[in-house]
Amino acid sequence: MIQINENFPKLSDSYLFSEIAKKVNRYKEANPERNIISLGIGDVTQPLAPAVVAAMHKAVEEMGEASTMRGYAPESGYLFLKEAIIRNDFHQRGISLDVDEIFVSDGAKSDTGNIGDVLDAGNTVAITDPVYPVYLDTNAMAGRAGDCHNGRWSRIEYLPAVPENGFIPRIPDRKVDMIYLCYPNNPTGTTLTREQLKHWVDYALENKSLILFDAAYEAFITQEDIPHSIYEIEGATQVAIEFRSFSKTAGFTGVRCGYTVVPKALKAFDKTGKEYALNALWNRRQSTKFNGTAYIVQRAAEAVYSPEGKKQIRQTIDYYMENARIIKEGLNALGYTSYGGVNAPYIWVQTPAGISSWEFFDKLLNEYQIVCTPGVGFGASGEGFVRMTAFGTRDNTIEAIQRMGR
Amino acid sequence: MIQINENFPKLSDSYLFSEIAKKVNRYKEANPERNIISLGIGDVTQPLAPAVVAAMHKAVEEMGEASTMRGYAPESGYLFLKEAIIRNDFHQRGISLDVDEIFVSDGAKSDTGNIGDVLDAGNTVAITDPVYPVYLDTNAMAGRAGDCHNGRWSRIEYLPAVPENGFIPRIPDRKVDMIYLCYPNNPTGTTLTREQLKHWVDYALENKSLILFDAAYEAFITQEDIPHSIYEIEGATQVAIEFRSFSKTAGFTGVRCGYTVVPKALKAFDKTGKEYALNALWNRRQSTKFNGTAYIVQRAAEAVYSPEGKKQIRQTIDYYMENARIIKEGLNALGYTSYGGVNAPYIWVQTPAGISSWEFFDKLLNEYQIVCTPGVGFGASGEGFVRMTAFGTRDNTIEAIQRMGR
Repeated sequence: MIQINENFPKLSDSYLFSEIAKKVNRYKEANPERNIISLGIGDVTQPLAPAVVAAMHKAVEEMGEASTMRGYAPESGYLFLKEAIIRNDFHQRGISLDVDEIFVSDGAKSDTGNIGDVLDAGNTVAITDPVYPVYLDTNAMAGRAGDCHNGRWSRIEYLPAVPENGFIPRIPDRKVDMIYLCYPNNPTGTTLTREQLKHWVDYALENKSLILFDAAYEAFITQEDIPHSIYEIEGATQVAIEFRSFSKTAGFTGVRCGYTVVPKALKAFDKTGKEYALNALWNRRQSTKFNGTAYIVQRAAEAVYSPEGKKQIRQTIDYYMENARIIKEGLNALGYTSYGGVNAPYIWVQTPAGISSWEFFDKLLNEYQIVCTPGVGFGASGEGFVRMTAFGTRDNTIEAIQRMGR
Repeated sequence: MIQINENFPKLSDSYLFSEIAKKVNRYKEANPERNIISLGIGDVTQPLAPAVVAAMHKAVEEMGEASTMRGYAPESGYLFLKEAIIRNDFHQRGISLDVDEIFVSDGAKSDTGNIGDVLDAGNTVAITDPVYPVYLDTNAMAGRAGDCHNGRWSRIEYLPAVPENGFIPRIPDRKVDMIYLCYPNNPTGTTLTREQLKHWVDYALENKSLILFDAAYEAFITQEDIPHSIYEIEGATQVAIEFRSFSKTAGFTGVRCGYTVVPKALKAFDKTGKEYALNALWNRRQSTKFNGTAYIVQRAAEAVYSPEGKKQIRQTIDYYMENARIIKEGLNALGYTSYGGVNAPYIWVQTPAGISSWEFFDKLLNEYQIVCTPGVGFGASGEGFVRMTAFGTRDNTIEAIQRMGR
């Protein structure tokens, strides 16, 4: 008799975004004349950079000619892209990495989800709270989260990130095997300084823990002391895997490309304490369960690093960060307290006293026709907040703030 | 202390293709003037169809304009592609499926690998022997294969497919929970008739087993009584998941697109016997760990089903199948015994008496500068065979056979 993975039924349905969609649709049906502005889901609105478009056209041409067509790609990515990644994202920040340490994929969501394949189901897991739901859900699927009671998983170490601690999650008292850190953070938009991140690297070195560092939003950093990569911290190549994405950096949400860094110095252990290089295990996983990223997509990603590509992508990021500034300053002027939005495209807005995340969501929808994301959907410590994104168009962003001022 | 998944070290390195590459490189270095023809790895040589190229250019244009750009795709695929799939691949064969039963992905390798996520690690697994290595390796990673001694996994039920049984794997005596069937078969190129496949569906219905049916090569079927989909068999929607690929059908090995059918009627069970729809579990898995297939790629796949696309793709398949005929008839004329090559792009060649798979590989390389794949690399029952593929160019295919006749 075919049996299911019994961890799956423990998961609730992906409630957050479906509930938002339901509420928005209900409102639309009742008020078809109203123009709704979404600052909710973190999807981009600006088109691909012209340099990327040109590179894709060229690659499509190549695929249509027998002499230049490409079949199966190397599972971990073409050398042309891996070299561009290393040169631009790491060497220029003084980080030395080898091409064998880069694994190109169809996106950071796949990699943050699949990385658990190479790790024991018994490892303990710490996540910051609130958090991008994929870390928790994928560990629940693998059995690492334990059981769920009233929205809390029995084996998860939750690390609250709230105004009271300056959104700096505390270092756990006990030993934890896997720690998910996302900086700049989704959903709070907050960051860690080099010094603060160093505490985590030191903790991981001391406890032989693994840090899963999601740097999907590093391109949005504007301030000096904020690390773009965890490998800027000494010793991090021994304890950290880093996930990168072109989704927000270059508007690739519909193109699908990201990469994961698994340094060769990074070791994990079997139950006898014998060391294994996670790089070799991940390589085996990817070679077996993945067939490489499309050639056309890898050429698109390479173009992100061309001189024109860099300039064009910077313009789009600046455009989104100007949106962030407009939202943040607008909210401040209206008396709201908010966080993030300086080194990240997310603004974490405190709801007025006594109003819950969902109540504020309803208020923004019904009174101003603005869609945000209720903070509690990212975890218990997100209650009392909503997330707004800077990925809208300029006009919509300005109008949203104007509406809230009425 | 971070612990590894201890099933990983049980796997040997992906020996087969790296060993082939090593031998070929060694030969090339020693004989740089010799022209090597590869009939080894199953990669295509013909470019993308013009209809596909045109669709991709159009999609790239759209991605470069704010008014037409697409962000995150639905995780299970765009409706335009799912509808084209259902209309062309199923309705036309009298099979009724719903769009919610189709999951578009970056390829069948990912899906055949990832499907295990939703299934219990305690399920027993049967695989035909020889077999596409991904089924075995992914189950070994999940702990379903047990331990490996002398190349045999302790918990796997091997089903030999050899000339003695006409390459028809026997139905197991005991109950098996998961059964991998790949037809038309890789590597043997053989097929099952409707009647033969029905035995498996009946077995699965009786034992509440799950059939994982890999139909990646269905487009190469030329004979009437060979099923293109397992859903042509009555009751199959209750017991089978079907994997499809555009890789060989439309030369998408470097484009990356496939799809998986998980019928809503297909149930699996928890330990108490409670029923669960695998469709819902797979949807939850894909929504959590996958972010959809690139828009451009899905438009490319849609073009495969356009009138021009169909015609162009049929021409390429006919081209490869003419290669298959040339290889097969050429080998027959030279006194070799071979199988497959009629409904599949693979020819399974019996080595001369007393010569092993690897010895024959060496002979073909050293005497004729032809690269094939040693059958034993696909499993113990592949010993005494080599696999040749029809995916070469016409000139190379003809020359390979001429060389073998010298």
